[in-house]
This record gives sequence, structure tokens and C-alpha cells, in this order.
Amino acid sequence: MNTPAHFQVLGICGSLRQKSYNMAALRAAGELMPPGLKLRITGIGELPIYNFDVQEKGFPAAATKLRDEILAADALLFASPEYNWSVGAPLKNAIDWMSRFQPQPFNNKPAAVFSCTTGVVGGSRGQYHLRPILSQLGVHWLVKPEVFIGNSASKFTDGKLTDETTRKFLSDQMVALEDWIKRVKRLVA
Amino acid sequence: MNTPAHFQVLGICGSLRQKSYNMAALRAAGELMPPGLKLRITGIGELPIYNFDVQEKGFPAAATKLRDEILAADALLFASPEYNWSVGAPLKNAIDWMSRFQPQPFNNKPAAVFSCTTGVVGGSRGQYHLRPILSQLGVHWLVKPEVFIGNSASKFTDGKLTDETTRKFLSDQMVALEDWIKRVKRLVA
Amino acid sequence: MNTPAHFQVLGICGSLRQKSYNMAALRAAGELMPPGLKLRITGIGELPIYNFDVQEKGFPAAATKLRDEILAADALLFASPEYNWSVGAPLKNAIDWMSRFQPQPFNNKPAAVFSCTTGVVGGSRGQYHLRPILSQLGVHWLVKPEVFIGNSASKFTDGKLTDETTRKFLSDQMVALEDWIKRVKRLVA
Amino acid sequence: MNTPAHFQVLGICGSLRQKSYNMAALRAAGELMPPGLKLRITGIGELPIYNFDVQEKGFPAAATKLRDEILAADALLFASPEYNWSVGAPLKNAIDWMSRFQPQPFNNKPAAVFSCTTGVVGGSRGQYHLRPILSQLGVHWLVKPEVFIGNSASKFTDGKLTDETTRKFLSDQMVALEDWIKRVKRLVA
Repeated sequence: MNTPAHFQVLGICGSLRQKSYNMAALRAAGELMPPGLKLRITGIGELPIYNFDVQEKGFPAAATKLRDEILAADALLFASPEYNWSVGAPLKNAIDWMSRFQPQPFNNKPAAVFSCTTGVVGGSRGQYHLRPILSQLGVHWLVKPEVFIGNSASKFTDGKLTDETTRKFLSDQMVALEDWIKRVKRLVA
Repeated sequence: MNTPAHFQVLGICGSLRQKSYNMAALRAAGELMPPGLKLRITGIGELPIYNFDVQEKGFPAAATKLRDEILAADALLFASPEYNWSVGAPLKNAIDWMSRFQPQPFNNKPAAVFSCTTGVVGGSRGQYHLRPILSQLGVHWLVKPEVFIGNSASKFTDGKLTDETTRKFLSDQMVALEDWIKRVKRLVA
Repeated sequence: MNTPAHFQVLGICGSLRQKSYNMAALRAAGELMPPGLKLRITGIGELPIYNFDVQEKGFPAAATKLRDEILAADALLFASPEYNWSVGAPLKNAIDWMSRFQPQPFNNKPAAVFSCTTGVVGGSRGQYHLRPILSQLGVHWLVKPEVFIGNSASKFTDGKLTDETTRKFLSDQMVALEDWIKRVKRLVA
Repeated sequence: MNTPAHFQVLGICGSLRQKSYNMAALRAAGELMPPGLKLRITGIGELPIYNFDVQEKGFPAAATKLRDEILAADALLFASPEYNWSVGAPLKNAIDWMSRFQPQPFNNKPAAVFSCTTGVVGGSRGQYHLRPILSQLGVHWLVKPEVFIGNSASKFTDGKLTDETTRKFLSDQMVALEDWIKRVKRLVA
């Protein structure tokens, strides 16, 4: 493998809210990435709710586009809010659509996840539903460091992640992600 | 409490597919109910994907309608397919919408769940993500009998549940549900 | 039902460590209980690791004793540490033993759970493995308020729970537990 | 890396029962392994229930022995029964002990899991608690093929796995495990 100038990381935010803390943290992660990583953020809000009858008539353009973006990416970075102790519907919907493609777009992709919540707990329950779901679809997770950003309201200012401790956590995770991508490239070679 | 002539059970199918086995089984459950239960099936396919920005401008009519149906029902019956080892996006989306209402529509509702899958396992992983999610929102689950309908393709003919063993399982679950509704009515009185 | 002078609550601590924060919090919960509840703490450390061959020769005395204590209790209160993102082995072992008795000792018992951890997250992952396990065995959980006691090292002094905010959380949970016990008594009547 | 003549696979059975179906299937897996794998089965029944106070006085010999066996193995193979919708206490206990060593013995170990149950479902719920627990401790799971051996009583004769379909499933999993070990060796190099 020729190591490229950098690895393309596809950012996927599970919240569709414009002022989403998760989206703001995803942008921050992009800024905090080491030179070997480059973030491109995609959207999942155009996907209709999954319905096999719709699929049978042809995958929606938004699904095919997301599939292509995932296939083209070297790695995935999920900003995944916890909705009701589990993965939020928008992200689960994107996963359910993607899982219908053959070959499976998520297969053998290295990935990392973090979560922002306004409560204290920081989204661990959502992450622990998300991780096994995507593992089964072939994602290779960066296990550590885990990043749970609780009390989000106090850590962002005007849509920017300003809490220094959290910035350090994210920055460390991005460094670990770069190493992880290299390793998974060897795993799947 | 005056016991009414029958309890109203709201049926919610997690699959939006027209020829869904889960929907067919839900209709079968309605036919197999004891006289004290009456099933009305609602739909969740009109809900947009959950987005706080949409909610802020006003709940969509489909959300308010579902909320009202849940509030009016004595109990809920979920036919919940497993998508990717968890709750399918359509049902998770309905739950995420409902959870945003105050008071919480699911609170103190007795409920039962079954699942149809074409594979062997029968949806246990999906049910075990669904149960705690709705428990936290106040649903009181009928714990037993559990119903997992695997190998669905062999058990339905022309959209009818024809497998006698499975009909017996569902019938038994409906009898247990009636007793459970009475008990939960006392619990929440 | 004649309401007794108080309900007997059986306290079960998932940690066997002498200076366990969970045990200290369990004792605090006992002190903070309303007059209608009375706590008795039992132990699970005498149980051997579950083995069907041992069971077949006769349940160990420690298992029969715990079974009798559970049957005699009006409710259960679990202080459940999180070990490796799940229920700790000592508590899972007690559950596995109890589940082998007929009738099932946990069936129809109202219960509450809290958890202490030295980390920030407070044990939510462990609770979310524990709750469905015991739900299936017939436990009726108090859903709210949930109590996760993170950063335990800073909240206890000489084995006493001294953090006032946490004491209030526990106290509120105990009040809710008393109401819950009354409701479950009607449910199972 | 010089590829050795074969990879050493450490077999860990979650059931302590002498006539355990899981243990019988583990032995069968050993016989069905390709030439590049060699199985050695260890035991976890000598471990006391996890207790930090015991650990503080010194790890029990059985814990240190298991730690050394794990460290020496190229891969792990778990035969993991489902007890009460989760990992059985004996295996959770072994995991809780192992997790207390530094460096973490499970870290970077490739592993596969199967489960035997006497019921129909085949242990998927237990596997889906086990997988994330060990993922967090650094295990790299073989994701597919998954093996769930339901209705075990009909598939074994005199302690031997005689069901040909199941033997084929296990055999396929062992072939996939060999490839997986090679890949993980590159991942962690």
C-alpha cells in the first residue's frame, strides 16, 4: 500500500438539528485532526425512512450517494447522540439503508465514535447499542479512547467547542484514529 | 374502575413494507384476541425523520395523531422486526418522536411485543434493544410468553399466518396480555 | 391486603469488597428510607460459582438461604457496580443461582437499583445489562428516578456517603420505591 | 512475522458442567480445525468469585495461570452458554478477574465465539452481551460466520457433536478463524 498524503475520514452526525452539539463537535474534530487525516462531513437527513417497498423500486439517490461516500472513505467518524437510551432514529435509518447494499458499504471500514449529550452521562448507552450494530456490519471500531461529552451546553460557545479538556479528548481520539486506520488497512489487505 | 366491554389495543408495526410478515402477524393477533381485547392498527410511515428543528416549529400532524392514539389506547402491541441486530429505524423514529411530548405518551402503558424474521433466530436481539428503551419511557411490558417467529416465509400463506403452532403462541400471548392490562390498570391507579 | 407497618426491603450489593462504595451507599439508602421501608442487607459472597453439577447434588445452603430471603422480602434494592461494561460476576452469579429455583424467587418482586463507580459515567452500562436480565425473571423495576453515583471517591468519607446531592438522589429514590412497592402489590394481587 | 507451524488457540468454555454441550462442541471444534490451528482447552472453574480484597492480597494462582495461558495463545475460542439472557457467571467471573491484570491479557487477541443452548434461540442474547464486553478489553472478534447451536439435546450423542450441519458450521467458523488470526497479527504488528 502506498500511504496517501492523508486518509479521508467521512463524518456522519446522528443529529439533524442545525445547531446540534454533535455536529459542532464533529467540526471541531476535523480541526483537531493530525495532518494525516482529513474530514469531510456528509448528511443523512435526505434519506426517507427505510421501507423495503421503496428499495425494491430502486434505492433513493440519497442512499446511493451515502453508499458511495462510505465506500470512498478510508474511515468513518460518527458523532452520535443518544436518543432514548439507544442510537437515534436518523443514524439507525442511515445504517438500515446502507445494510441493504451488496457489497456491504460498512464492511472493513475503520471507525471511531463520540457522543455529545446535554445530560451528565454523555451517551454511553447509545454508543453501546451502536457499536455492536456496526461491528456486525463489518466496521472495525477504534476501542479507545472513548469520548463521551456530557453537559454539552457548558462546553460550546456560538457553535464552537470551547472546553479545552474536551478538545484534548477529541484531539487524542483523532491521533488514535490515524494509527487505527493504518492498522486496519493491514488487517484487510 | 369500571371494566369496559373490552380493552382497546393499539397495534404498531415496525415494518413499513406492504407485505410485511410482521403486519400480517399483527392482523392475525387481532383475530386471535380474546373477546376482552380489540385491536386497532395504526401506521408510523407518515412521520418524518426526527429532527428537533422540525419539532420546534410544531409537531407534525402524524406525530400528534400517533400521540393521541397511544394516549387513548389501553395497551400497545408491537410487531417489531429486527433490523441489524436492533430496533428498526421506522419504529425507533416513532419512539423518538413520541418521547418528545409532555406528558410522555408511553408512560404507564401495558404492552406486548412479538417479532417475525425470515431468519432462524426470530428477532430476539431486536426485542432486547426495544424492551429497555420503552421501559425507560414508562411502558410496562408483558414479560411472558415471549414470541419470536423465525422462518417467517414458511409460516404465512397469501399474507395470512397459517402455521398453527405460531397461531397458538400468539393466541396465548393475547390471553396473557388481557390479564396483564388488568394488572397494570391496578398498578397505575 | 393489610398494609404492614413497613415493607421489608432486601439489600443486595454486587461488590464483595469490604470497603465497597456500593455497600456504603446501600447502608446510606437504608438510613434515608422513609418510615414505611426497612432495609435488611444480605450477602452473596458465600455462593460458589454456578455449576449445574453442583446444583444437581443439592442447592448450596447459601443459595437456599438467599432464595428464602428474597421470597420473604417485599422488595429488592440492588447496589450494583459496573464491571467491564456489564453486571459484575458476583451479582450475575447470584442471579444465575436464583434463576434455577422453582418457583422463580425474583418473580413479581418490585426492585430498585443504583450504582457507584469511581469513574465519571456512573454505571449506566451495567444497569442496562442488569435491568433486562431481571425483568425477564419477573422483577418489576422502579424506572425513575435513576441513580448513577460517579466519582465515588469524592462522595464518601470513612465509609459514609457524605455528598449531600447524592444523599438527596438516594432519598428521592427510596420515597419512589415505597410508592412503587404499593403499586406492584396491586399489580400482582 | 514468521508464521509458525500452527496457531495456538485457547478454548474457554463458559459452562462448568461436566457434560456441558458447550464443552462437547468446543472439543468438536478442536477436531474440525484446519491444520493451521491447534486447540488447547483450559478451565475457569478454579477461580474464586471476583473480590478486590482477594486481589489486593495477591492474585489467586488460578487467575495468574489463566492470564499466562491467554497471553501465550495466538487466539481465543469461547464456547459461551447463555444464562438468563446474558453471559453466564463463570465466564463473566473469568473476564472480571482477567481485566484486573496490567497489561490487559485480552488486549489484541483475535477471538471467535459460539454458543449451545437447549432452547431454540441458540444464545444470541448471551453472545451480544459478551461481544461488546470483550471488545472493550481489546479482543478482536471474528464477526462472521456466527454460530448459534440451538436444540442442543438433539445434536449430540454420548458427548459428541453428531449433527452434520452443525459440524459444518463449526468447521467453517474454524477456517474463518485461521484467516482472521493472520489478519489480526498484521493489525497489531
